Amino acid sequence: MRDVAVVGIGVMRFGELWETPLRDLCVNASLQAVEDAGVDRVDSIVVGSMACGLFTEQEHVAALAADYLGLGPVPATRVEAACASGGAALRAGFAEVASGLSDVVLVLGVEKMTDVSGDATTAGLATAAEQEYETFYGATFPGMSAMIARAYMERYHAAPEHLAAVAVKNHAHGALNPLAQFQNTITVDDVLQSVLVADPLHMLDCSPVSDGAAAVVLCSAETARRARKRPIRITGVGFATDTISLYRRPDLTRMAAVERAAKAAYAMARRAPGDIQVAEVHDGFTIMEICSIEELGFVPRGQGKDAAPSGLTALGGRIPVNPGGGLKARGHPVGATGVAQACEIVTQLRGEAGKRQVPGARIGLTQNMGGSAGSASVHIFEA
Amino acid sequence: MRDVAVVGIGVMRFGELWETPLRDLCVNASLQAVEDAGVDRVDSIVVGSMACGLFTEQEHVAALAADYLGLGPVPATRVEAACASGGAALRAGFAEVASGLSDVVLVLGVEKMTDVSGDATTAGLATAAEQEYETFYGATFPGMSAMIARAYMERYHAAPEHLAAVAVKNHAHGALNPLAQFQNTITVDDVLQSVLVADPLHMLDCSPVSDGAAAVVLCSAETARRARKRPIRITGVGFATDTISLYRRPDLTRMAAVERAAKAAYAMARRAPGDIQVAEVHDGFTIMEICSIEELGFVPRGQGKDAAPSGLTALGGRIPVNPGGGLKARGHPVGATGVAQACEIVTQLRGEAGKRQVPGARIGLTQNMGGSAGSASVHIFEA
Repeated sequence: MRDVAVVGIGVMRFGELWETPLRDLCVNASLQAVEDAGVDRVDSIVVGSMACGLFTEQEHVAALAADYLGLGPVPATRVEAACASGGAALRAGFAEVASGLSDVVLVLGVEKMTDVSGDATTAGLATAAEQEYETFYGATFPGMSAMIARAYMERYHAAPEHLAAVAVKNHAHGALNPLAQFQNTITVDDVLQSVLVADPLHMLDCSPVSDGAAAVVLCSAETARRARKRPIRITGVGFATDTISLYRRPDLTRMAAVERAAKAAYAMARRAPGDIQVAEVHDGFTIMEICSIEELGFVPRGQGKDAAPSGLTALGGRIPVNPGGGLKARGHPVGATGVAQACEIVTQLRGEAGKRQVPGARIGLTQNMGGSAGSASVHIFEA
Repeated sequence: MRDVAVVGIGVMRFGELWETPLRDLCVNASLQAVEDAGVDRVDSIVVGSMACGLFTEQEHVAALAADYLGLGPVPATRVEAACASGGAALRAGFAEVASGLSDVVLVLGVEKMTDVSGDATTAGLATAAEQEYETFYGATFPGMSAMIARAYMERYHAAPEHLAAVAVKNHAHGALNPLAQFQNTITVDDVLQSVLVADPLHMLDCSPVSDGAAAVVLCSAETARRARKRPIRITGVGFATDTISLYRRPDLTRMAAVERAAKAAYAMARRAPGDIQVAEVHDGFTIMEICSIEELGFVPRGQGKDAAPSGLTALGGRIPVNPGGGLKARGHPVGATGVAQACEIVTQLRGEAGKRQVPGARIGLTQNMGGSAGSASVHIFEA
């Protein structure tokens, strides 16, 4: 298998970008990544987008992106794995370069979610869940995540304050990231006093609905030698699935797909959880970061709730998680998230993260998931 | 790059499968393919589906398929490139095996299109076209294909009878395929007397709206040695894009992406158009087969119209095209088509095509496209 490296990144500030059409989001992030890489060509494009058809009535977005980038006729395909679409696209781009089918691949993650009503957005996101036996009967992701949070709280005696601490930490990190959608700090009281979306989850336990795009340029190790900046190697790739039907999960507090994807990535990179110096983790809801850091092996099961309150996962802690603000503060245009996480880790490993820099970070990890961990993607990056 | 072979195929009879849910379509075709391959494991699943979210309110279909196949926790991702989603999924599966990321990959193509109204189906398909500047103003694929047909007829003095001959040929082939949605023969008069959908295209110039799935099992050449049946190697892979905006095409009679994808596949396989003994070509509308066989190099430009009337592309002709009935007679569940084409070519190269067998066929080609050739996929198979 050929070695694969990230040589360019491009990410925009996410938000409610009313005046920026889907195609412009694609072009904006992609041109930044190509410029950053300093490559003179792109052989193929892989686009991660969860529901462009439902949110913008535009499927076939990969060909559209290639066209508006002036990169047609290169191959361009879209990859979808619900909210893990960005991570899945990164994996597909990795396979294209590793196989030799392409030498320089642009991996783009994009979602435009605010062009439809809030109800339509919630319904669109719910298509990532079990349609026939759960969504059809009214289940939504905030509701299902609340059930997971409730189960975790019962099992491990966690309190709403434990959940809130994750949002407080990620907003504090986002306040140091000029590209975060939310750059305001919040307190535990702010979270607990925000409107209750689905008990025990308050509004500030939930990541926002956002528009945005992020892109990375991948290439072979050989081509990477000619890159403008230090190449960041992708040394571990893991992806796994689990039933997307919560009612069929033996234990709501487990995210088995995350554990399996992580084990695969650690094995490929010949690394252990203790080797990871910085991580971007899928905090779509605060409870998800708590469960995820347990599955990633950063903390023992049941102790994820204490990581944020103790400072373990904060900048300056043993294993900083979501230094870029996470989905909570950076924003969560679903298809873009997995790629934006990669952009943040590459920025950290380049030592270009400014006020949010994790000193001396050389090994980083991204974890992206979809449909309550029905799909999970883990990548390990090394400087 | 590792060599990749098809060791198993599974395809169902397409149609209006009211009583078969999306997940059952996935399981049906997949289990056939795994059984045919005789493999004892699957390392990864790639699903081609164009618009499962719009047609069935179920995104995240790859994880759903893995779950209902009992194959979770293996990696499972969806690939989309409009009506070329099946071909794009085949290419992604090829890259996974060629890279060594996976050794045995199940590539599944699926679409359930009849659970929504006819208008919603047409609208869903139209999301593969330019939303902001064409679809929004009422353009539909029958309408845009009619413009292409009109331009071709003016340029090359083609008549409706030339278009009709393609449908007549493909229905004659479908009548020999027990898995074709339509197994009735038709005449040129039947086509010309069928309702006019978009002048000059009659109803019988158009492929049907179908439900269905098709699957292939890919593996490395080494693992293929242990397969139950003769492995069929994939020796050429080509994919290309073009503007999806018809108004920006310099020449409506050209499908540049098909020509580029074909050149890439021929170069990789070290083959020329004259080497191809049997082909499955994307006849979503009769005009598309005519333009495609020109871009594939089977006939000179402007002579595609004469291929069906002269018998050149019929069974027994110099280069039989769509022996399985094509999209027109086999049916066209969009995401499944590119994979179903591969199943037909593998069946031909195995010598198992029965009444529709192309004698001694050893080299075959599939061409799948989406959004009026905004995306085009070409694969070359060798026994």
